[in-house]
Amino acid sequence: MDQNFNTVRTDLALEAREMLTKQVREDVPGVLVETSADDDVIITRVNVTTPEAERMMGKAKGRYITIEAPGLRYKNTPLQEKIMNLLASELAGMVNLPRNATVLIVGLGNWNVTPDALGPRATHKIVVTRHLQEMLSPELKGGVRSICAIAPGVLGITGMETAEIIQGIVSNIKPNLVIAIDALAAASSQRVITTVQLANTGIHPGSGVGNKRFGITQASLGVPVIAIGVPTVVHASTIAMDTLNTLQEHAAFARYFKSMANLSDQDRHTIIRQVLPEMLGDLMVTPKEVDRLIEDIAAVVAGGINQAMHPNIDYENIHMYLH
Amino acid sequence: MDQNFNTVRTDLALEAREMLTKQVREDVPGVLVETSADDDVIITRVNVTTPEAERMMGKAKGRYITIEAPGLRYKNTPLQEKIMNLLASELAGMVNLPRNATVLIVGLGNWNVTPDALGPRATHKIVVTRHLQEMLSPELKGGVRSICAIAPGVLGITGMETAEIIQGIVSNIKPNLVIAIDALAAASSQRVITTVQLANTGIHPGSGVGNKRFGITQASLGVPVIAIGVPTVVHASTIAMDTLNTLQEHAAFARYFKSMANLSDQDRHTIIRQVLPEMLGDLMVTPKEVDRLIEDIAAVVAGGINQAMHPNIDYENIHMYLH
Amino acid sequence: MDQNFNTVRTDLALEAREMLTKQVREDVPGVLVETSADDDVIITRVNVTTPEAERMMGKAKGRYITIEAPGLRYKNTPLQEKIMNLLASELAGMVNLPRNATVLIVGLGNWNVTPDALGPRATHKIVVTRHLQEMLSPELKGGVRSICAIAPGVLGITGMETAEIIQGIVSNIKPNLVIAIDALAAASSQRVITTVQLANTGIHPGSGVGNKRFGITQASLGVPVIAIGVPTVVHASTIAMDTLNTLQEHAAFARYFKSMANLSDQDRHTIIRQVLPEMLGDLMVTPKEVDRLIEDIAAVVAGGINQAMHPNIDYENIHMYLH
Amino acid sequence: MDQNFNTVRTDLALEAREMLTKQVREDVPGVLVETSADDDVIITRVNVTTPEAERMMGKAKGRYITIEAPGLRYKNTPLQEKIMNLLASELAGMVNLPRNATVLIVGLGNWNVTPDALGPRATHKIVVTRHLQEMLSPELKGGVRSICAIAPGVLGITGMETAEIIQGIVSNIKPNLVIAIDALAAASSQRVITTVQLANTGIHPGSGVGNKRFGITQASLGVPVIAIGVPTVVHASTIAMDTLNTLQEHAAFARYFKSMANLSDQDRHTIIRQVLPEMLGDLMVTPKEVDRLIEDIAAVVAGGINQAMHPNIDYENIHMYLH
Repeated sequence: MDQNFNTVRTDLALEAREMLTKQVREDVPGVLVETSADDDVIITRVNVTTPEAERMMGKAKGRYITIEAPGLRYKNTPLQEKIMNLLASELAGMVNLPRNATVLIVGLGNWNVTPDALGPRATHKIVVTRHLQEMLSPELKGGVRSICAIAPGVLGITGMETAEIIQGIVSNIKPNLVIAIDALAAASSQRVITTVQLANTGIHPGSGVGNKRFGITQASLGVPVIAIGVPTVVHASTIAMDTLNTLQEHAAFARYFKSMANLSDQDRHTIIRQVLPEMLGDLMVTPKEVDRLIEDIAAVVAGGINQAMHPNIDYENIHMYLH
Repeated sequence: MDQNFNTVRTDLALEAREMLTKQVREDVPGVLVETSADDDVIITRVNVTTPEAERMMGKAKGRYITIEAPGLRYKNTPLQEKIMNLLASELAGMVNLPRNATVLIVGLGNWNVTPDALGPRATHKIVVTRHLQEMLSPELKGGVRSICAIAPGVLGITGMETAEIIQGIVSNIKPNLVIAIDALAAASSQRVITTVQLANTGIHPGSGVGNKRFGITQASLGVPVIAIGVPTVVHASTIAMDTLNTLQEHAAFARYFKSMANLSDQDRHTIIRQVLPEMLGDLMVTPKEVDRLIEDIAAVVAGGINQAMHPNIDYENIHMYLH
Repeated sequence: MDQNFNTVRTDLALEAREMLTKQVREDVPGVLVETSADDDVIITRVNVTTPEAERMMGKAKGRYITIEAPGLRYKNTPLQEKIMNLLASELAGMVNLPRNATVLIVGLGNWNVTPDALGPRATHKIVVTRHLQEMLSPELKGGVRSICAIAPGVLGITGMETAEIIQGIVSNIKPNLVIAIDALAAASSQRVITTVQLANTGIHPGSGVGNKRFGITQASLGVPVIAIGVPTVVHASTIAMDTLNTLQEHAAFARYFKSMANLSDQDRHTIIRQVLPEMLGDLMVTPKEVDRLIEDIAAVVAGGINQAMHPNIDYENIHMYLH
Repeated sequence: MDQNFNTVRTDLALEAREMLTKQVREDVPGVLVETSADDDVIITRVNVTTPEAERMMGKAKGRYITIEAPGLRYKNTPLQEKIMNLLASELAGMVNLPRNATVLIVGLGNWNVTPDALGPRATHKIVVTRHLQEMLSPELKGGVRSICAIAPGVLGITGMETAEIIQGIVSNIKPNLVIAIDALAAASSQRVITTVQLANTGIHPGSGVGNKRFGITQASLGVPVIAIGVPTVVHASTIAMDTLNTLQEHAAFARYFKSMANLSDQDRHTIIRQVLPEMLGDLMVTPKEVDRLIEDIAAVVAGGINQAMHPNIDYENIHMYLH
């Protein structure tokens, strides 16, 4: 996926499409968008349907569902439960699993880098059951799918591409579906830890906080891969870029300029390199409380998956299944 | 300390003076500056000597020493040791401790918020010896000062101002000196985790990543207080502000503008609020690897203090004193 | 408190009295005992009323309440809530606090030593409110007492006796009551992490997993001190001692012996030193899952304190007060 | 492997042979033993050479090397380095790796259970290099083997047998050798965290603190498997059993007994069940400081492996290879 239109980096299809629309100033052909909202939550469905749309968006063909809830920024148990339920029902709608299916949950990212630790932390809260299948009574089996889970660690820790590890495990365990959880980068600071994205496209190279080199997709694994991601950072360069865009785009500031239309990509880069010298790309913008916020959103993501996978479990008793 | 000249927030006297100089376009009266440098390290001594300088700088009267080493950004053991040694000698030069003095080390900040955890993590690496004094042989006593240490946690965790806790302990333990370690905010991303500041002013309200409400100073505690700080974040708003400043200040971009001199403070705020809505002030810019970098710089800070306090210990054997 | 009757170490008054009773084969004068029980829980109230009883028991004069629930060994949310409620009501019954009282919670022990980490972990879950008092509306104030909390760390970490630190803080903060939470040693492995002891005696030297050298008592602090403890270990030597006692006491084994009455204290020590050479006293018996079990019981202890302190808070919304 | 001679559980071949020798009162046929020692360290080589020896010992045919250093109980940097060097040379002697071999290090055990966390913690300290091979200069390649590493987590966390995960990864990565690191149970408290065992037999079902259900062996993986283990616990029942044995075996106590020869296995179990009711088998004896001791021994184990794998690396610069 090349990023041919600007240097603001985002892993959200929603934002890629917003930026593209702003740029081309019309609807993008081959990209279908649907939005629904209530007081707390906006759900956006982006469908990338053609190779041309794929190229322009910089996002693989497929379905992307974004659940946005600005209130998640604050501790709010009822809203967390609502998002968990929405995630469960969107996830259930995206896959069509037989009752006896086995699902492998994969937590991507580095547990030693807080904003990249979403995958491992959510994976740790998954109710794994594959090893209990033979012990479950017939009535329980109806509500308890066979789930296994692993957070293998990143390339610098294992010396192996995550994709290599997962391929090996998939070929031995033979799950019907892989769900990969990953921390993402957003273009807008407002979406950080307030947004969950589901996609039936798997994980593509270059995406995520940790920047994968190999994809984790149906093409590479041979089974369908659902990606669930939450933006946990904005690249610092995005803040600088946004500042220039805001200055340039707001009519109120037009009076200052002879012509900002001429602020070329090269000039933009000169400015950003001045503001963020050398470390460009390594600097991340996160909420100060990122440790706690990631713990909370990991619980929401894991809760949504648990509920979608084990629809008939009485959640009062779920602890009985937890390690 | 009011911040009357701009909204870029910094806890480094060095940067406060840089910004002020740029603004007033001349030397600031009452602020003495001395710089020395070699290939790896720049040492800057800023001396705020008058109430007027104090007001203009937004920094308390006193001596500030900054040790900058851009190479600390990378894993580099010899450079870390060099900075540790420099910190030890600057610290030893700043205080004049009798051999039988007792020193209390205080780690400020929240151990649950990675960029605010420098103080607690460095404190944990301090060689505490106060409880061993009666067991030390006379020859060892010469090189081993009486050191005690605490990281009390922040207001939201204890319900007590850190200053209240430290006052109580100081009045009971009666140390000759307090050294307070804190995580700071810088104006420049290049100084994050590459700079150590020592000051004989103590810690003032509003400073640090965690924003103290009460000071920890000689005035409040009755004993001298040395502050040792390392910037671990830049406020996200500083990045936006810097971007505007860069655009405005660089001659290369003058051709775009009718007159950027008119970009008022209010317009700046309008832009920044657009880029960083609502969460303004809570968003922090940190290196992605902040967890590891803070662990490393905490070792440098603690090592420098250990060496200044216990000048005659053979560091090969220091583990014998460590808990 | 000397331990003059045997070398099985216990911090539970309940067990001290059991062992004493077995030894003297009659009721101990000056020790009043009351027991009540249901299917899940046994509550024992031991009252040490005379100096003679104090000496024989090795426990300070005062009231000891033990809540035992063997089921806590297993994950069991309803039982955990029941114990939390019982602890809250026993604690409320033990103190008589005015509505505007300030209470300081102190978590004793070493957070780096899992079985000694109960105090710090429970303290971290306390709802601290002292810093919010001025912001609370009058109706909220009725249910929210002024609570502050600290886990200062142990002597080897701070270089200060915990008692010194707490004295300093108490003299500055002036609470009406101190509640000290500590990990204990039991004589019986069955009581490990299944028992909570409350005592109005404070914490005495030599008690706890970490073995205090100075007391934290009304005598040392000038305010009443409630001690809440949970046994998290059995000393390994206790297991060996118990094995000998069992062999000796059970009639079934009498046939083996000429006369076990002659198994002297010295012989016992010879055997135990053989089984547990050198490290005697440092070896602890804990459940393999001690990390998780301590996390769970810390939540029960903190929950009980929170409820006793803030009787009118709607616990659905308690997260609003939590850091 | 059945355990047909007593209920004291040990994962050390050395101890299995000691117990067997005591029982059969002569050398065990098919078990070869060699010992060498200096002031600090005892090295024992046990070679199980026949199926009969395998059955009697309860240990698979193969070579077991035990490095014992009681001084590891105390912080002692020079001794730690000596053991690290010995481990490196014993490990190098046990395998015959071509220079371009790839080795997979597997950390077994549960990172949430401190005494079972040795494998994951040591694995985290391994210098992984497989992903750097193409970037290494030819001269560096001579000293830097291709190493990869993973700590997959235990059955209760992943829902997959560790053996299944490793099989999958091995079939995809195709290493020439697997080194599995695991926490063990000892019979003697003196060997806890003071002993390292190497074995060319792999890991067998039922071994380790976490009790594997499937083996990780050349038979199951198709490549040689070296097991490196450190005892971190003694089962509590072993302490009780040892106490009975000591009483029974020491001539000094003979005078008490009519005939202890008659203390049947059933009587022993009655006593132990009395001392350790219900939780029998789950109770572990560990040093109180197990958290720190495991961190230290994990560094020794990882250091020994690093050195054996990368014999020509200058260890001053090893941090350059570390994540």
